Amino acid sequence: MKADGIDEALTAPREEFAAGKKAKEESLAAKESTRPFRIAVFASGTGSNFQAIVDAVREDCLDVRIELLVCDRPQSQVVERASQAGVPAFTFRPKDYDAKEQYESEILSLLKAKEIDLVVLAGYMRMITDILVKPYYGRMINIHPSLLPAFPGVNAIRQALEHGVKITGATVHYVDGGMDSGPIIAQAPVEIRDGDTEETLSIKIHAAEHKLYPKVIRWIREGRVLLEGRNVRVLQD
Amino acid sequence: MKADGIDEALTAPREEFAAGKKAKEESLAAKESTRPFRIAVFASGTGSNFQAIVDAVREDCLDVRIELLVCDRPQSQVVERASQAGVPAFTFRPKDYDAKEQYESEILSLLKAKEIDLVVLAGYMRMITDILVKPYYGRMINIHPSLLPAFPGVNAIRQALEHGVKITGATVHYVDGGMDSGPIIAQAPVEIRDGDTEETLSIKIHAAEHKLYPKVIRWIREGRVLLEGRNVRVLQD
Repeated sequence: MKADGIDEALTAPREEFAAGKKAKEESLAAKESTRPFRIAVFASGTGSNFQAIVDAVREDCLDVRIELLVCDRPQSQVVERASQAGVPAFTFRPKDYDAKEQYESEILSLLKAKEIDLVVLAGYMRMITDILVKPYYGRMINIHPSLLPAFPGVNAIRQALEHGVKITGATVHYVDGGMDSGPIIAQAPVEIRDGDTEETLSIKIHAAEHKLYPKVIRWIREGRVLLEGRNVRVLQD
Repeated sequence: MKADGIDEALTAPREEFAAGKKAKEESLAAKESTRPFRIAVFASGTGSNFQAIVDAVREDCLDVRIELLVCDRPQSQVVERASQAGVPAFTFRPKDYDAKEQYESEILSLLKAKEIDLVVLAGYMRMITDILVKPYYGRMINIHPSLLPAFPGVNAIRQALEHGVKITGATVHYVDGGMDSGPIIAQAPVEIRDGDTEETLSIKIHAAEHKLYPKVIRWIREGRVLLEGRNVRVLQD
C-alpha cells in the first residue's frame, strides 16, 4: 500500500514544510470556529490508549476527529479497533520497505493530505525520524509508562519494578526525536505496592494512561498547552 | 576534636565489624523490650529534617533516642538545633584532616561506642565511603529531594525544574556508597505547578520530607522494613 505524494514529500525541502505549517496555522485561525480538530493515532499493539481516545470522543469528552490510525503491525488488535470505530487505517510492514525514510515519507504525505493537527503516538513501538518529527514538532505527542526521565525506552514497567521504586506513573510529552526525551506536558503518579507484579502494575499504569491521554489531548485542542523551550505550561480552565 | 578508638577502627578487619554486628544483633534481641533504639543523624546545613525527627520524638510519634549529630560544618544551623534539643554533636572540618578515611574512622568509632542502630543522613553533603557504608549497610538511610532514580546528586530540585517534569518528590533509601543509588524504602510525590520556582518547590518538597522521614524511621524501628536485594518490602501495621 503506497500513499500518494511520496515523491513530493521526499524531495520537498524543510523550508517548504515550515512555510506550509505557517500558512496552515493562519488558515486555521480563520476557520477556528467550525473546523474540526484532526488527530492521527500511531499504534503497534492492543491499542488500549487508542480505544480510550475513541471512547472519550464518543462520550463527548473530547472534541476531536480521529482521522487516521497508523500501524506498523497489520495483524495487531488496534487495527480491528480502528475498523470498528470507523477510523481509516494506514497499515504497513517496515520490512516491505528499503528504508525507514520511505514509509515515514508516505505517512507524512498522508498526514498532510488529511490536514492533521496533532499526531498522537499511543504504543507505537518505533523511533520516529526527523522526516516526521521536524514538520510536527510541537504537534506530536507520546505517552510513556513511567515518570520520565526515569525508565525511558522499552519495558519501562519492568525497569521500575526491578529498580525497586515505590512511585512510578505515566508521562505525556512532545516528541523530539530522542528516546522519550521531549518536553513533558503532564504526568500521573502510580504507587507500587509490595506484591505488585509486571501484570498488576501494568493494569494500574494503563488505567492512569487512559485517563491522562484524552485529558491532555483536550487541553491541546483547547489551545491551553504552551511549549516554551524545554518547559510546557498548561493554562487553567 | 578526636574521638576515641580511632586506631582500633582503622586497623580492625572487616570480619571483626561483621562479627561485632552479629553479636550486637543477638544481644539486641535479648534486650529488645527495654533497650531504646538509638539513631545518629548526619547533617550539613539548616537541619530542618533533623528538627522534624526531634519534633516527632518529642510528640511521641517516634520511639527512638537521638544519640548523636554528626556535622561537617561547625557553623551550620543544625549544630544550634542539636544544642537546643540536648543532642550531643560531633562537628569537624574535613580540611583539618589529611584524608577522608581519618574522620570517617573517628565517626565510626563514635557510632560503635554509642551502639547506634540506625544512621540517618539528613542533608549531609558528603559522599560516604566504605569505611562507614560497609559496617552500616542496611542500617544507614538517606533522604533525597527527588523521585529517584530521577535527578540524583546536587541541586535535585533545580534539575527537576529545568527538566520540566510535572511530578517530583522525595525518596528515602538505604545508602550503598553510590550517588543516591541504594535500595528505595519510600517515596512521596510532589506536584510541580506552573509558576513554581526553586524556592516554592523546595518548600513543598521539604514539607513532604518532614512527614516522610520520621515515618520511615518509625517503620524501621518497628522492624517492618525488609531489605531484599535491590528491593525493599514494608510490612503493614
